[in-house]
Order: sequence, then C-alpha cells, then structure tokens
Amino acid sequence: MDVSSFSRHDSAAAAADHHPHHLPPGFRFHPTDEELITYYLLKKVLDSSFSGRAIAEVDLNKCEPWELPEKAKMGEKEWYFFSLRDRKYPTGLRTNRATEAGYWKATGKDREIYSVKTCSLVGMKKTLVFYRGRAPKGEKSNWVMHEYRLEGKFAYHYLSTNSKVLPFSSS
Amino acid sequence: MDVSSFSRHDSAAAAADHHPHHLPPGFRFHPTDEELITYYLLKKVLDSSFSGRAIAEVDLNKCEPWELPEKAKMGEKEWYFFSLRDRKYPTGLRTNRATEAGYWKATGKDREIYSVKTCSLVGMKKTLVFYRGRAPKGEKSNWVMHEYRLEGKFAYHYLSTNSKVLPFSSS
Repeated sequence: MDVSSFSRHDSAAAAADHHPHHLPPGFRFHPTDEELITYYLLKKVLDSSFSGRAIAEVDLNKCEPWELPEKAKMGEKEWYFFSLRDRKYPTGLRTNRATEAGYWKATGKDREIYSVKTCSLVGMKKTLVFYRGRAPKGEKSNWVMHEYRLEGKFAYHYLSTNSKVLPFSSS
Repeated sequence: MDVSSFSRHDSAAAAADHHPHHLPPGFRFHPTDEELITYYLLKKVLDSSFSGRAIAEVDLNKCEPWELPEKAKMGEKEWYFFSLRDRKYPTGLRTNRATEAGYWKATGKDREIYSVKTCSLVGMKKTLVFYRGRAPKGEKSNWVMHEYRLEGKFAYHYLSTNSKVLPFSSS
C-alpha cells in the first residue's frame, strides 16, 4: 500500500474544480510529507477499511493520469490516492507501473522522510513521471507522481500487515 | 485595510505550532492570492466587523515580525493578518512601515492579481522585507511580508468605505 500525490507540470492547464464545499474559502488539503505517511498511509496499512475524507483508492495500473482528477475526493491541481503496488513478475519485487497508454518512470533519487518531532525515519518519497507509449521509446508527459511508502520503524507494520491489505490489490 | 501574509525565509526555524485542532491532519489555511482578496479582504473592507477563523487583526507599526506568529489565529510557517496602513505624514499618501525595532521595505515590483473566472484585476500584491535599525542603514532580516490591497473594480469599495474601517486604525 502506498499513498501518492499527482500533479501536472503545466500551470496553464485548467484545474478540475473538486474543491470541497464544506471547507471555508482558502482551506485545503495540503499535507506535509510526514503527515501523509504518519496520519494517512500508516493508518491505512494498519486498517484497510480506513477512509479519510481526502484520499481515494485507485488501481494505478488501470487508470491513466488524466483520469485521476475525477476519481479524487478533492484537489484542484494536486490529487491524493491510496494504491497497492502491482508486482511486475509473480516471483520478483519489481513494481509494475504500466498503464494501457504508457508507464510511470522514476526520476531522481528516493527522498527520506523524517519525523519532525522524533527525527526518526518514517518513510520514503519517490518521484515518477508519466511517459506515453512503451519503454524505452515513451514520450515524456507533464504528469508527475510522488509515491510515499513506509520505511524505518513503520515498515514493520507494512510487512506484517501486507496480507491484510491484499484484498485491495488488482492482481 | 490590507491583508498580509508573513513568512520567514529560513526553513530551519522552529515553527510555532498554531495548527487548529478542529481541522483533520493535513488540512490548513492555504489561500490563493485571489481568495485572500475576494473572500477575505473585500469582505473586511465592506464590513469591518467581519472576522474569519483564519485571519487576525494587527497594527503592523506596533508589532515586530517575531511577535506576529503568536498573534495569529493559525499558521505554522506563514501567518495572515488584516491591518490598516498608517500614513507617514498626515497630508501625504506614503505609508508608514516602521516599527520600534526596524522597518518593512518593499522589494521588486507590485504584482497584479486577477480573477481566474472573470480575468479582471482584483488586487495588488507587494512584497516587503524587514530590516532591523533605521533606513538607510538597516540590516536585512529573513522576515518577508506579502501585502495585498484591493485594486480595479474592488478599489471602489475600498475608497467608498474608507471611513468605515477607520476605527481599526492606530493613528
């Protein structure tokens, strides 16, 4: 189980207006990396029935990036989702990041996310870019994903509850 | 009457934890420039008794920047306030931006803020930096203010209701 945030590197793009009406103007879901991991991803991993008002569940292998905004619970230029990673091969650890129209490709190094209070490692953040077509000939798009996973002391929960979250998997 | 946002260009600074407990984790006051002007400043200018749950009132000539976080209603690394501009001289239009310990000095050009929907000009945004001491020998600090004022069609309200908001003035 991961939590991901999506955005488009294109400020001229028309933003889907998913702003929740129950929040006063100017209030939005704008979590820090640590909050995403500590309050949302960890809770979801420990209890697969957990459902906040901000983060929907999707199967990232079955959704193209431009279909994601309408599947989100809220968000204007950024959208947040829970998803289960699909394995590329049944016997391996590599993640399948392909969709019908293209694939997500990691860019840069994974970043470590630390707790501000305890300074302990709580998760990792991977940045991915969507390419249309098939590797290695894909065409880079403006869609960007930040994928967060548990790490450090929290990874214990991730491993020990892996079987619990499997019902959400697409595989 | 202006609305200002403050921040410190110093990511290592300890943030005052004013996060409101009634909001779920990750939700915060993070308005766009247009929202600040349209939903907050215009309402305040039209009705001086207006008080949102996010923006406090301060007299910027009587507060040093480091005293502002504790006067804010919420905010961790950015804080929002309503304030009335004090005139430097009774007969002129120049704004007094001095405090006891220093002064706010404008940097760069004022930016125009447009309505996304109507494309009309709604306000202006001025960026100021705090200097300790007295001009022109002040010492630059890490404190930054963004000052928003009504402009365009909204400025009519500003002028016609100027007398109404005077009771909030320090002068």
